[in-house]
Amino acid sequence: MQPFASQVSFSTGVIQPSGKVIERRLSDMRGMYLDTAEYDRIMREEGDRLVYQVYPVALPEEPGQVLHCTTILYPGKVGDEYHMTKGHYHQLRDRAEVYLGLAGRGYLVLQLEDGTIDKVLMEPGTAAYVPPNWAHRTCNVGDEPFIFFAAWPGDSGHDYGTIEKLGFAQLLVDRGGQPTLVPNPRYGQG
Amino acid sequence: MQPFASQVSFSTGVIQPSGKVIERRLSDMRGMYLDTAEYDRIMREEGDRLVYQVYPVALPEEPGQVLHCTTILYPGKVGDEYHMTKGHYHQLRDRAEVYLGLAGRGYLVLQLEDGTIDKVLMEPGTAAYVPPNWAHRTCNVGDEPFIFFAAWPGDSGHDYGTIEKLGFAQLLVDRGGQPTLVPNPRYGQG
Repeated sequence: MQPFASQVSFSTGVIQPSGKVIERRLSDMRGMYLDTAEYDRIMREEGDRLVYQVYPVALPEEPGQVLHCTTILYPGKVGDEYHMTKGHYHQLRDRAEVYLGLAGRGYLVLQLEDGTIDKVLMEPGTAAYVPPNWAHRTCNVGDEPFIFFAAWPGDSGHDYGTIEKLGFAQLLVDRGGQPTLVPNPRYGQG
Repeated sequence: MQPFASQVSFSTGVIQPSGKVIERRLSDMRGMYLDTAEYDRIMREEGDRLVYQVYPVALPEEPGQVLHCTTILYPGKVGDEYHMTKGHYHQLRDRAEVYLGLAGRGYLVLQLEDGTIDKVLMEPGTAAYVPPNWAHRTCNVGDEPFIFFAAWPGDSGHDYGTIEKLGFAQLLVDRGGQPTLVPNPRYGQG
């Protein structure tokens, strides 16, 4: 493979050239937000919001490669819950990941399979580490797009299904202006 | 392992907290620069310049981890050859690496073991990819510190010895203000 470069805009998160851009709308995250009545109201009255986009650099998902992308997580809430990514484990659970904050302000929320939760604040310049075995999701707690760069091993694989089925044990909500983890009543209900 | 964060300054390259900072001075690179008379003159008359520093995030060098660091490569030349890093292969040759330019302007210079050379211009926001099997070195072609973030697989290992012994087949020099690759007459002489 020949060396190459992509250009990352730190202000917009756009990567050029990029692989196929992933767009996640509210309809892609049915059942993930706590306040289902508010979710339904937004879908009905405001339409199917764009929650986040992922710009990947096109690379083979093979051992030895270092995959990388940007994520642009738009500000907003569903009820008092912050806009978030779906979140996933790596198929190979021992594969880690590093995030580098480029713009905006968010939390990396992490979970072990036993339900242990942790969170890490990310601002521009924050290198946040997802150690082996932690599922990872990000939440935008600011008023601007939360944008970060990510790099992870080429053979990690993505396991979205476990989170889609079981959820995160805790969810990040606004409690009087403070981002606060609260128990997810639907956690583990499949 | 618990999740954690480090703060990266995009303007200075400093990471806090970091592991042990690596400093490379001209004396660490004896024999790597083309113009040995000028190298000797600088060492004698100007002293042992700081060429670059590496701020690593402290992580175990194990499969699955994603190691990351910043490099701060100071501007300067030895004769008409730009300040550069020593350069290395990965011990596991198939391990790739991604660089993200943060400040300044430089070239990533890459080499396969058959002597094939390539180069990639890096500016702020450039995500430059080191594919499997390429030795990699950076050169500062600007007037400011050239600063970049790097991420690579935890089991890559570093093979500096092959480059220390054989060198790069080509070196990056200033030809009338243009960064230009020229043959290295000492390449492969061990």
